[in-house]
Amino acid sequence: MDRRPIGVFDSGVGGLTVFRALERALPHEPMIYLGDTARVPYGTRSAETVVRYALEAERFLGRHGIKLLVVACNTASSVALRPLTEAAEVPVLGVIQPGARRAVERTASGRIGVIGTRATIESGAYPAAIRALRPEAEVLSRACPLFVPLAEEGWTDNEIARGVARVYLQPFIDARVDTLVLGCTHYPLLSEVIAETMGPGTSLVDSAETVAAEARALLHGEPRLAAPESPGPIQHQFYVTDVPGPFQQVAERFLGRAIGRLERAEL
Amino acid sequence: MDRRPIGVFDSGVGGLTVFRALERALPHEPMIYLGDTARVPYGTRSAETVVRYALEAERFLGRHGIKLLVVACNTASSVALRPLTEAAEVPVLGVIQPGARRAVERTASGRIGVIGTRATIESGAYPAAIRALRPEAEVLSRACPLFVPLAEEGWTDNEIARGVARVYLQPFIDARVDTLVLGCTHYPLLSEVIAETMGPGTSLVDSAETVAAEARALLHGEPRLAAPESPGPIQHQFYVTDVPGPFQQVAERFLGRAIGRLERAEL
Repeated sequence: MDRRPIGVFDSGVGGLTVFRALERALPHEPMIYLGDTARVPYGTRSAETVVRYALEAERFLGRHGIKLLVVACNTASSVALRPLTEAAEVPVLGVIQPGARRAVERTASGRIGVIGTRATIESGAYPAAIRALRPEAEVLSRACPLFVPLAEEGWTDNEIARGVARVYLQPFIDARVDTLVLGCTHYPLLSEVIAETMGPGTSLVDSAETVAAEARALLHGEPRLAAPESPGPIQHQFYVTDVPGPFQQVAERFLGRAIGRLERAEL
Repeated sequence: MDRRPIGVFDSGVGGLTVFRALERALPHEPMIYLGDTARVPYGTRSAETVVRYALEAERFLGRHGIKLLVVACNTASSVALRPLTEAAEVPVLGVIQPGARRAVERTASGRIGVIGTRATIESGAYPAAIRALRPEAEVLSRACPLFVPLAEEGWTDNEIARGVARVYLQPFIDARVDTLVLGCTHYPLLSEVIAETMGPGTSLVDSAETVAAEARALLHGEPRLAAPESPGPIQHQFYVTDVPGPFQQVAERFLGRAIGRLERAEL
């Protein structure tokens, strides 16, 4: 048994959707969450800069004695997974592989769509991961930069959200994809409007759910890594790099419940 | 005469609208522009973090021997002008005072609106500056977080831009303001849709124009600070903190012409 926490790293608070999925999948595991809110978003930055920021986050979580690092951020998973895996002394899980695997399991037609930030889409990480599993898959991908600010503004169910979704998603409708990967931690907050726009013939893949299932499989596969059953509620730790105050409210929207305490991290 | 450059600092490339206005107002002055693209946007961050980033930028420009620091970023001007003024060995101009002064000159009714990023609006810097000049002014202010990504996406003249503008600007129409301060370097790119939404009775104040006029007045007021007339085209310098490549295109949209060369700055 291993009581060390799972480290969950994201560029901001969006990764709390991954944290929540992990908490449901692994209710006995203590976790330590780090959101780089002083430098969010990563999705508009160069790969080189994202790698540098991600390695600083890994060092912070490494100092806190984690046993597994989950990279919740799609952008960091897309461009920094290899350097993170080389730097970390523990297993590292990103969201790309699990999302690609789920998409390939789900699709019937082999036509898969991927939406994400500019950096995630430009990296080509999802199409590469999907084609490695199913070489004949047709993958269409597109950056949707307005989805993140819409989700943060809480405009997830109004005419503007529907209008933006129509513009971004029309090429996927035209291409008749039957599976759409939500390749950004913010997008699950817009899943209703995305599902409505795509219509009932499209299945949405939420990378938060898929990486949580992967983490569960990993810890169940190596029982010495799993935590013992906990008699009471687990005390998780939450860190952000900007001052915590203003993020509390947004964090609670992503987490779906009150957050105990957000602390400031110096990377 | 003083051949040292004017330093222009912004959180990203939006400040190039200020650079452009300065170039028109002061055609003989060499300038050095610094955009903190690795950490943009500042508008969603805490005041404490913005102050830290702004002071790092000031040190960088100070090392390059500037004679005047223009803070193009409304957020940095709102929360970091005093620490910057204390740290810098040269005069520092922010965009808040010039914008407030122009708004007070323009308004007939005394009802003034201010739009900006969350950090700028929460700082209360514009209302304070306006009321210091005209205590009886009624100032209504509101953060418009979707305007920046709309401008960066280039969606400045479509139904979505008009829909977002209607939502954000309705309170200003209801309050019958006759002057609206565009308190963010990105907003001039949306000035057509903003003007159309507000109607012909509202005058827009562009802080880029006003700070350029202020810089001109300062250099004309102290002739020993002004540069000599230049026989040929001026060589300006442009720095960003993220890798320059991806920003070239956006930078040119803000600058309105080709940019010679963007270099990487290490703060």
